[in-house]
Amino acid sequence: MKEKEALKKLIDTAAGRIPADVVIKNCKVVNVFSGEITEGDIAISGTQIAGIGEYEGEQVIDAQGRYAAPGFIDSHIHIESSYVSPEEIGRLLVPHGGTTIMADPHEIVNVCGIQGLDYMMEAAKRTVLDIKYELPSCVPATPFEHAGAVIDAPEMEEPITREGIAGMGEFMNFPGVIAADDGTLEKLLVAKRAGKFIDGHGPGIVGKDLNAYAAAGILGDHECSTVEEMKERLDRGMYILLRQGSACHNLSTLIKGMTPMNSRRCLLCSDDRQPKTILHEGHLDNHLRICVEEGVEPITAIRMATLNAAECFGLKDRGAIAPGYRADIVLLDDLKAFHVNRVLAAGELVAEEGNYLPEIDFYDISSVKGSVIVKDFSSDKLKMHLKSNQVNVIGILPGGVVTEKTTAEIQLDDQGEFVRDPEVDIVKVAVVERHQGTGNVACGFLKGYGIKEGAVALSIAHDSHNIIVVGVSDEEMEFAVNSLIAQEGGIVLVKDGKVIESMPMPIAGLMSDQSGEWVDEKLTAIHEKAYAELGICGDVEPVMTLCFMSLAVIPEVKLTDMGLFDVTTFSFIPVEIESK
Amino acid sequence: MKEKEALKKLIDTAAGRIPADVVIKNCKVVNVFSGEITEGDIAISGTQIAGIGEYEGEQVIDAQGRYAAPGFIDSHIHIESSYVSPEEIGRLLVPHGGTTIMADPHEIVNVCGIQGLDYMMEAAKRTVLDIKYELPSCVPATPFEHAGAVIDAPEMEEPITREGIAGMGEFMNFPGVIAADDGTLEKLLVAKRAGKFIDGHGPGIVGKDLNAYAAAGILGDHECSTVEEMKERLDRGMYILLRQGSACHNLSTLIKGMTPMNSRRCLLCSDDRQPKTILHEGHLDNHLRICVEEGVEPITAIRMATLNAAECFGLKDRGAIAPGYRADIVLLDDLKAFHVNRVLAAGELVAEEGNYLPEIDFYDISSVKGSVIVKDFSSDKLKMHLKSNQVNVIGILPGGVVTEKTTAEIQLDDQGEFVRDPEVDIVKVAVVERHQGTGNVACGFLKGYGIKEGAVALSIAHDSHNIIVVGVSDEEMEFAVNSLIAQEGGIVLVKDGKVIESMPMPIAGLMSDQSGEWVDEKLTAIHEKAYAELGICGDVEPVMTLCFMSLAVIPEVKLTDMGLFDVTTFSFIPVEIESK
Repeated sequence: MKEKEALKKLIDTAAGRIPADVVIKNCKVVNVFSGEITEGDIAISGTQIAGIGEYEGEQVIDAQGRYAAPGFIDSHIHIESSYVSPEEIGRLLVPHGGTTIMADPHEIVNVCGIQGLDYMMEAAKRTVLDIKYELPSCVPATPFEHAGAVIDAPEMEEPITREGIAGMGEFMNFPGVIAADDGTLEKLLVAKRAGKFIDGHGPGIVGKDLNAYAAAGILGDHECSTVEEMKERLDRGMYILLRQGSACHNLSTLIKGMTPMNSRRCLLCSDDRQPKTILHEGHLDNHLRICVEEGVEPITAIRMATLNAAECFGLKDRGAIAPGYRADIVLLDDLKAFHVNRVLAAGELVAEEGNYLPEIDFYDISSVKGSVIVKDFSSDKLKMHLKSNQVNVIGILPGGVVTEKTTAEIQLDDQGEFVRDPEVDIVKVAVVERHQGTGNVACGFLKGYGIKEGAVALSIAHDSHNIIVVGVSDEEMEFAVNSLIAQEGGIVLVKDGKVIESMPMPIAGLMSDQSGEWVDEKLTAIHEKAYAELGICGDVEPVMTLCFMSLAVIPEVKLTDMGLFDVTTFSFIPVEIESK
Repeated sequence: MKEKEALKKLIDTAAGRIPADVVIKNCKVVNVFSGEITEGDIAISGTQIAGIGEYEGEQVIDAQGRYAAPGFIDSHIHIESSYVSPEEIGRLLVPHGGTTIMADPHEIVNVCGIQGLDYMMEAAKRTVLDIKYELPSCVPATPFEHAGAVIDAPEMEEPITREGIAGMGEFMNFPGVIAADDGTLEKLLVAKRAGKFIDGHGPGIVGKDLNAYAAAGILGDHECSTVEEMKERLDRGMYILLRQGSACHNLSTLIKGMTPMNSRRCLLCSDDRQPKTILHEGHLDNHLRICVEEGVEPITAIRMATLNAAECFGLKDRGAIAPGYRADIVLLDDLKAFHVNRVLAAGELVAEEGNYLPEIDFYDISSVKGSVIVKDFSSDKLKMHLKSNQVNVIGILPGGVVTEKTTAEIQLDDQGEFVRDPEVDIVKVAVVERHQGTGNVACGFLKGYGIKEGAVALSIAHDSHNIIVVGVSDEEMEFAVNSLIAQEGGIVLVKDGKVIESMPMPIAGLMSDQSGEWVDEKLTAIHEKAYAELGICGDVEPVMTLCFMSLAVIPEVKLTDMGLFDVTTFSFIPVEIESK
């Protein structure tokens, strides 16, 4: 009955028989269908736009000649990578015009399983940002590590049908798709049977392998880094998500591959976006700025962040300012700097000049706290008992997440333990399993991090999020791990047996329960002290670099809780090189 | 299990591990995503395209350098208007590249109710043309006539959920939508709750009324006749179906309103397409020819008939030649005349050089036969007992379906019955109710038809499809109606008490069970005899003109089984004009 009344009210408003709930006057309406600007009032009834024309309303918003664009849609983001809660990401993104995000919560699901998804979905109800979740498809990312959950096809069957689950998240196991392995086929079919999309992640796939990946029904890809990759995917019917995140900056490169013929298949996404980036550069407003700087016509750019995304993901109710559409509206000062003046979400004024207006009532985090469960950890677990001083070493390549597989001759004591040479930038790195109480600890060597004092430990280590620790001595490393356990995860920097900086992340050991500003300040302090007090190399991002040292799907060599893993051969390798 | 095997086979084929079922070699692939032509083999696995590249297959089709385009999608058509069965429309359209049609069976549902829909759906299974039905939204079209069924919201609830029902058909009752009347809201909600689209029909609606129509969730409109109308609808988020049918030729006019920014919201449709048009001009191949003649870039034109339509109607499995898409492929000699060489539907070669290849096993029509049910008809029912010789007259305006409301002074005999003056082109017209046995017969006068001998009777009279009859005397009219009843509907021409030509239409009195060629021959003979033997005006289409004389939603004045109806005032008016 309520449904019918709302529809009647919407039509009555559109027809001008009753005043609108809200009318935005004096604005230039960005029409993403025609590519033109229309002058007119925007009449809103409840959560929807009733019409554009001459209207009166109960509440009048004077746009003072500004542009009105549809609310922006981020086509692919991991909230966890912002280190804040869903409620807080809403507070950060909405003032930049973001009203919908397609979020793959695969970090928290790797830690907490479906309970992590449940938390994310409940928390999402506490923000006016419309968070459309994707069900993580690859938990764990590889069989070569222990995560907090294993989500195979049977575990996916219930969650995929949920109303708040828009589709299946990025299918990172592209080798499994291309090989058509049985478990992968089962997962794909879970999504297909439920009529949900399957998002992609296909770096570097070409030719017939790409045909196979696309044939499986993969919707899009955000991992392109060249125009050639982009074009090959577009040709095969995949949407391209042009990414501009805190770590990866692909937008300026890829935008050159966009043409009038293919532009409607191009979207904008962040993937990962840290509070610093959001606070200082913005969100999709920043993407739009870059697009226009690169020569894209402004309404074409806006369409990438609105209608194109809505069409891609089947969100038929949004992506344009037109009758019947969700009243997600961004008032912009101009179409060049894209300064956001005000934001309406579902008909409600929710942000003004950078401020998020609604009160936030945060959801209880107790279901995802206490996620750092480590069994019998002590410095004994860091002993390596090496017989050879020739070892394989993970070589950091600054500015990326790819590592180099290298070797070194190290010094050993009479117990076969590593003796660090302060003149040589090689230190011990360990991954401590923190989900299942296996007691697993794997050790290896890391080159290029530059640490000269203390230790750094994190509970964010993609994608299984075990603890990763790097330090100049076993004692500092042990202290760092124990301090991290005590604070229930996050980031800790220690020096001389003291915590010199830390950011607790009680939400699954992945996210703070504090504000984005607090996280940014903490991260800034962590970075400063990492460089100034621990001596970490200036060309290395001290936190992010470590986060990816465990990700066994990115070449060349990584360390999981099960050992040193050679991604080029997809097999474990010993740390010691046998003497010839 | 079968599903998984098919997916595995598709991926294995795409990856090149196994040979394709079918491979099309030596073709130029039209890529509707990039707007470019790619050289490559098309590999097909089962019903789907596996990949484009270098492939081998069990069966090889040599395209001999031709273009391969995606199968064409007609965005709006009434099969009944072709006077043939669904199986036969498949045989006619597929050789012209049509592989999917969006069909609104509102003619047969007006006659047979949901049983008519059931028949259409069963018959559709017997053709390789993929017929996506829309559930008729306006049965009957108006409350001012008796149809064979009344389909309100409660009657729609089950059929709308059927898998073969893509959405709700053209919502012709736009005044009801704009007024937000209760019955209309209920119907709209039936579609919305089922997650199905609602197609539109909004001739002449402008401004706030158009906002109201769009706000109600109407998907598109095929009734535009000017670029202004088209642009106003596009701006409001409605798709535009550029129509080129047997009766309405809007394509050349509207194509001028298409721009690079809005082209992806423009589709192609027929609405009504008679066998003659199909046999002599083609189907969407003809639309494409016109588009290119009008200066549209060929791949942009093809996209209107493929990807754009697929996106509009949420047909995610088709509309492009790309991995995972349905293998609906048209081989074209060129991109100018669009001569269709061969057609594949769902991976199967189904047409070659104008010939439809599959055997047709027609569905039993007994459920929709015997639809002409007339109670107590005799020439007595044609008596008018007029007291005034001043009468309202329906004036035919040649070349359209709109009539003119006019008046005339006629001759009456002493019984008050009309005496035809051979020098004056005014004859009697009657509508005989043929569904419910009401015995209703309404009489009026028609000007401009030109008939000089005999009578013409039809059981096709939009949208209720009662019998309409025109003749020079009550006797000829009575004989025509009785002949029509005897042949179970269709078209009959009589002269001097003899049937001089006829086309029986046993399927609901609307469609022949014969071939398109037979229907065309019969229609040609009917036209010839109508002009030569009955003396009907050369500038009037003798059948089509009568078909629309009962359609009480098109101005200015029409005749239903309930009387003379003034569409400008939406009320019945007397035939006699009271003397002042």
